[in-house]
Amino acid sequence: MIPLPEVIHLPRGFSFSSVACGIKKSGKRDLSLLVTDQPAVSLGAFTQNLVRASSVDWNAENIGRCRALVINSGNANACTGTAGVGDTARMAEQVAESLGLVANEVHVMSTGIIGEPLPMEKIGPGIREAAGQLAGGRESLVDFATGMLTTDTFPKVVSKKFTVDDREYVLTGVAKGAGMIGPKMATLLAVVMTDFPLNDSPANRQRFRSVVDRSFNSISVDGHTSTSDQMILVATGGDPGDGSPTELFFSELEEVSVALAKMIPSDGEGAQHLIEIRVTGDSPEEDLRTVARTIADSPLVKTAIFGGDPNWGRIMSAAGYAGVDFDPHQSSLLINGHLLFQNGTPVGFEESAVSQSIQADFETRIDLELCRGGEELAETRYWTSDLTYEYVKINAEYHT
Amino acid sequence: MIPLPEVIHLPRGFSFSSVACGIKKSGKRDLSLLVTDQPAVSLGAFTQNLVRASSVDWNAENIGRCRALVINSGNANACTGTAGVGDTARMAEQVAESLGLVANEVHVMSTGIIGEPLPMEKIGPGIREAAGQLAGGRESLVDFATGMLTTDTFPKVVSKKFTVDDREYVLTGVAKGAGMIGPKMATLLAVVMTDFPLNDSPANRQRFRSVVDRSFNSISVDGHTSTSDQMILVATGGDPGDGSPTELFFSELEEVSVALAKMIPSDGEGAQHLIEIRVTGDSPEEDLRTVARTIADSPLVKTAIFGGDPNWGRIMSAAGYAGVDFDPHQSSLLINGHLLFQNGTPVGFEESAVSQSIQADFETRIDLELCRGGEELAETRYWTSDLTYEYVKINAEYHT
Repeated sequence: MIPLPEVIHLPRGFSFSSVACGIKKSGKRDLSLLVTDQPAVSLGAFTQNLVRASSVDWNAENIGRCRALVINSGNANACTGTAGVGDTARMAEQVAESLGLVANEVHVMSTGIIGEPLPMEKIGPGIREAAGQLAGGRESLVDFATGMLTTDTFPKVVSKKFTVDDREYVLTGVAKGAGMIGPKMATLLAVVMTDFPLNDSPANRQRFRSVVDRSFNSISVDGHTSTSDQMILVATGGDPGDGSPTELFFSELEEVSVALAKMIPSDGEGAQHLIEIRVTGDSPEEDLRTVARTIADSPLVKTAIFGGDPNWGRIMSAAGYAGVDFDPHQSSLLINGHLLFQNGTPVGFEESAVSQSIQADFETRIDLELCRGGEELAETRYWTSDLTYEYVKINAEYHT
Repeated sequence: MIPLPEVIHLPRGFSFSSVACGIKKSGKRDLSLLVTDQPAVSLGAFTQNLVRASSVDWNAENIGRCRALVINSGNANACTGTAGVGDTARMAEQVAESLGLVANEVHVMSTGIIGEPLPMEKIGPGIREAAGQLAGGRESLVDFATGMLTTDTFPKVVSKKFTVDDREYVLTGVAKGAGMIGPKMATLLAVVMTDFPLNDSPANRQRFRSVVDRSFNSISVDGHTSTSDQMILVATGGDPGDGSPTELFFSELEEVSVALAKMIPSDGEGAQHLIEIRVTGDSPEEDLRTVARTIADSPLVKTAIFGGDPNWGRIMSAAGYAGVDFDPHQSSLLINGHLLFQNGTPVGFEESAVSQSIQADFETRIDLELCRGGEELAETRYWTSDLTYEYVKINAEYHT
């Protein structure tokens, strides 16, 4: 459990609300609404699953310009056929009607059970109620972040101020996700807000893509890509004009996105460890990320960390089947800073010391070096959770 | 636990032995030897892991002609640097010396712990002892199959007679494997023997490859490709001559290989279900296999089956992220013959009946149809085990 930040900064031009309209049987908040004062610029990244929810299709089509964003939890509206497509459009229309907007300026996110129709008779009144309760301030943001949760155990908020040319701006992000799919619950959703001036130029979309690759595309719990993953950035700062230091903004965005993304495996189903896998080498960053992801997705690596076992053979063999070319004889591996394997040969090490370091901390760090004497070194970081009894319990003891 | 066949047929020209030479602390058999009367033809398939054991390199170089095959269990001789390469060659040389052969006619397999040097002071005497005990007959074959086991709970033997042109031939295979890697124990090994006349022509190597793809490359326990996987076919029947019905032989080989391969997830670490995934569609067979493998490797699918949960949303979403193009709106899914999802839309079904069918049987069958109206239908089958508490226990509670 990661506590909320003591101070949550709020970017100019955003208001929020969240209600419980009865989609979740638990009676918890299940419909969140975000509205911007003025038309904002939006950038988005969407699941690469072929089987994707209609809300993902809707947003992919309308991304770029945003006045509002509505999220329901408890039902993913995925695998629901043409009826589901219509329900997504109706959600956007209902928000637009309540606020005097145009439907295609409204982004929609849905997360929860797959394959069941959205209860539109609950969602319609929910949207109208939420539209009447919009407010700024910490409390409404936290409610907004809470209304999007499913199997998560805590709301995920990251917020920071940064200064450019003596002017202060804010970046605030919220996310949800505990399994890529929890028990029939779908998915990772993230919304990051800023009042920095920004447009959706091809260069900025490319920078955004790179930030997503290094944050939300560099985490896993179970390796199961969901039908509904979405990350959307909403910027209310207006036109950047020429010479705006957008590079600087994107490095701030990367910091916030990485912090937010790491919270997801930290809250991974049954997680007892957050595992950080750092791979360095003279291969392209994407290749290093593939190696890191293959290690992160190996159940043998994940159970070893759960068991406090510095089982480096499992890590090296997972790297070997990643499909990326490297020379095992020029590879080295460290766990929590202890050198275990160097240039293709085992190194004598004190197993109990390494094991204790794994057991003592919530975070375990794996460093893999795949250098072949090249000049250009790249690095990637990837985060995952361990595989525990509790993970099996959560996902096996749920019955449809 | 799958019992040994009542009758085990033995192909002409093979003798076997197996001894306990002290590699395993348990004192169980850990060194098996197979010898052919005459030079035999061999075909091999080897792990695609970049980090591969030196015995795999040795065999890949020498495959084609075989007089003997030695297997040690308890130590994989993988990630052991240049010393390990020398140890593999010494094993082949010691077998050759004991039997008056040439070292490069001796195939070598090693399975067990990764990253520790082979105890050559035990293996040398073990090879000499085994060379003195060679025999034919059921008992020596079963001993041979037992000496190659690591975390397996039973020896795996499949044997059949078949007739070609009024002449009877035999195909007998043995295999080991419970995790792709068990607790630091490596791997899948399989040896199939026949007295059918065969050569290692490019066409036969291609047919062999196809059989391996449909059998040992169509199973998983944890998706973790090991450093040491090997499947070797040894044929003592001599030159086939022109017009030999080798196609027929390879269909017999496929039947034996599939039966042997299915035993591995049946004995998968902690397995309570063997899951058969059958994917049909108008895409190439390799693409269908990729879809099947992605479903097989999803921890969410594997825990659902363990929990008796007909959670089709997990299966469809796994298919969707396999990276293979298909139309979700023309896809249908059945579990144990019950239709759950048809042409992109959920079908009302009795959940308790499907759940009970999963719980009642050791085998669960998933049928996924991905047809887009094409004429050419292909089919693939894939087998995996479920993900259970016992799997986590086996792999987490082991300490290096």
